[in-house]
Amino acid sequence: MIRGALKKIVVIGGGTGNFVVLKGLKRYPLDLTAIVSMADDGGSTGILRDELGVLPPGDVRQCLVALSNSSRMMRSLMNYRFENGGLGGHSFGNLLLSALEKVTGSFEKAVEEASKILYIKGKVIPVTMNQVRLKMVLNNRKILEGEKEIYLSQEIDQGYKTIYLEPYPTVNPRVIEEIENADLVVIGPGGFHTSLIPNLLVEGVCEAICNTDAKKVFVVNLMNRKGQTTGYKTSHYLNELIRFLGRDIFDYILLNEKRPPDSLIDMYSDEGDLVENDLDDDRVIFADMLGGLAKISKKDLLKRNLIRHDSKKLAQELTKIVDCL
Amino acid sequence: MIRGALKKIVVIGGGTGNFVVLKGLKRYPLDLTAIVSMADDGGSTGILRDELGVLPPGDVRQCLVALSNSSRMMRSLMNYRFENGGLGGHSFGNLLLSALEKVTGSFEKAVEEASKILYIKGKVIPVTMNQVRLKMVLNNRKILEGEKEIYLSQEIDQGYKTIYLEPYPTVNPRVIEEIENADLVVIGPGGFHTSLIPNLLVEGVCEAICNTDAKKVFVVNLMNRKGQTTGYKTSHYLNELIRFLGRDIFDYILLNEKRPPDSLIDMYSDEGDLVENDLDDDRVIFADMLGGLAKISKKDLLKRNLIRHDSKKLAQELTKIVDCL
Repeated sequence: MIRGALKKIVVIGGGTGNFVVLKGLKRYPLDLTAIVSMADDGGSTGILRDELGVLPPGDVRQCLVALSNSSRMMRSLMNYRFENGGLGGHSFGNLLLSALEKVTGSFEKAVEEASKILYIKGKVIPVTMNQVRLKMVLNNRKILEGEKEIYLSQEIDQGYKTIYLEPYPTVNPRVIEEIENADLVVIGPGGFHTSLIPNLLVEGVCEAICNTDAKKVFVVNLMNRKGQTTGYKTSHYLNELIRFLGRDIFDYILLNEKRPPDSLIDMYSDEGDLVENDLDDDRVIFADMLGGLAKISKKDLLKRNLIRHDSKKLAQELTKIVDCL
Repeated sequence: MIRGALKKIVVIGGGTGNFVVLKGLKRYPLDLTAIVSMADDGGSTGILRDELGVLPPGDVRQCLVALSNSSRMMRSLMNYRFENGGLGGHSFGNLLLSALEKVTGSFEKAVEEASKILYIKGKVIPVTMNQVRLKMVLNNRKILEGEKEIYLSQEIDQGYKTIYLEPYPTVNPRVIEEIENADLVVIGPGGFHTSLIPNLLVEGVCEAICNTDAKKVFVVNLMNRKGQTTGYKTSHYLNELIRFLGRDIFDYILLNEKRPPDSLIDMYSDEGDLVENDLDDDRVIFADMLGGLAKISKKDLLKRNLIRHDSKKLAQELTKIVDCL
């Protein structure tokens, strides 16, 4: 790193986990890069992939909105979902990215143009430009095809043989460059098998993470997802990452220490259970990073992610690490 | 008009006619306002009206693109049409306006926000904010419902009893203000019954045009539309306008004098015939305003509007009028 330049933070993930990290870090003077999984194939994104043959816009859209310095109105527009007819379910931001991909001829240029329109701080980089599908072979030999099917499966915690992207993707070279030049690489939180790991399945990404001089921090999820990571403790998550990375490269493991109210844990019980810590390790940092309940809207109550990281608190802990670099 | 201020030009129409006028005038130091018909209910616009209950975005989109100072890429994006699936046929710009209407809560704010996103020169103002349908009662008592049905009818040149908007719309007050403060009001060219006249059917618009101190110019269409204005001469168009306006208020009547090649007129014969002039009037200005054939793409050859105004030549003639004001 050049003395005096902003510290470079590379955040790896996808979906809402990335959103929370980036939204919090945006408020600090940092050089931010989001590396985004391209495995999403559910909902609006899945329909666009199938019908238009575009690359998946959903996770990229979330990162763009998180990093956007445009008006609240523009951010609302990006997340606006049409309610009826042939457009029903599509978020406007997904349509913007897909139309830009068609007009510019590449998803990479589409992301660049959308970044300008939204005045984003930092960079959003798709991990690969290949049209990939996430697949998983369970211990019972059942094959799960696609991120959506994996996300909905209730059998993953019975163990799986392998998870892979098909076809085997070429990494976006900018990803390697960003990781090489980073001061801090943030891995997680977020959908473990569906948003985080798909990044590690792309050729060269694990090697780049292992070889960079950047410090590495693992932000552990607050909750296990039922049927996917049921009963996982911190060590389970860490060991599964090590399985892909080849070795334990983490300098920090960031854990939430504030227990949500039992009433909320009960409400969440159909979705999953609390991640408990079983690591006794100098690298573990405990901090209150629990999202405020006051902020949970009625809409959220009907959805998942009732128990989530608070983006400000999480960013505060990450910047403490940055300050020590 | 304040001395030294830019001359204020108000262009009234809708659809491609407005587009051609505005695109040409954009290059000059003028204060431009486009007043746009809200009767469109065909294609992508019709589906959005029906499925989402929004106001018709199509004509507004064309005016915004014509006045946009953003990149060529952004303009292509606005006109990009999705090709497949549930999105098939929708232009991206229409989706932008409809999503903005939903997010901001009003079509007027949607147009304002889109104007900012596209860095437009001047203003685009919907003639009414009411959800209206264009209706026409033919001489044979048949009722045509909707702009699309009227546009496709082959019986209008047999005569019609009345044309109206339902429900009877309240004018957007900004329209009256713009016409009052104008130096020049440009009426036409464009779809005569489907784009131009619908503006005159809104309460107060004809009165405002009659009462303003602005000079008024009528830009006569190059071609008659088969089954709609078959065999119309200049005086037919003028007299039909006078029928709505109540009196002949035009200071200038701008006519193309360059005859398209016969081969092109032949190719167009399924669509319509050439408008011939029968006016011998001091107000008539003849000029070559014919669109260049070299610019007609293969795509255009398959579509209508093979014979059209050249936006630069038309603007040149209009600015000559402005210079005399």
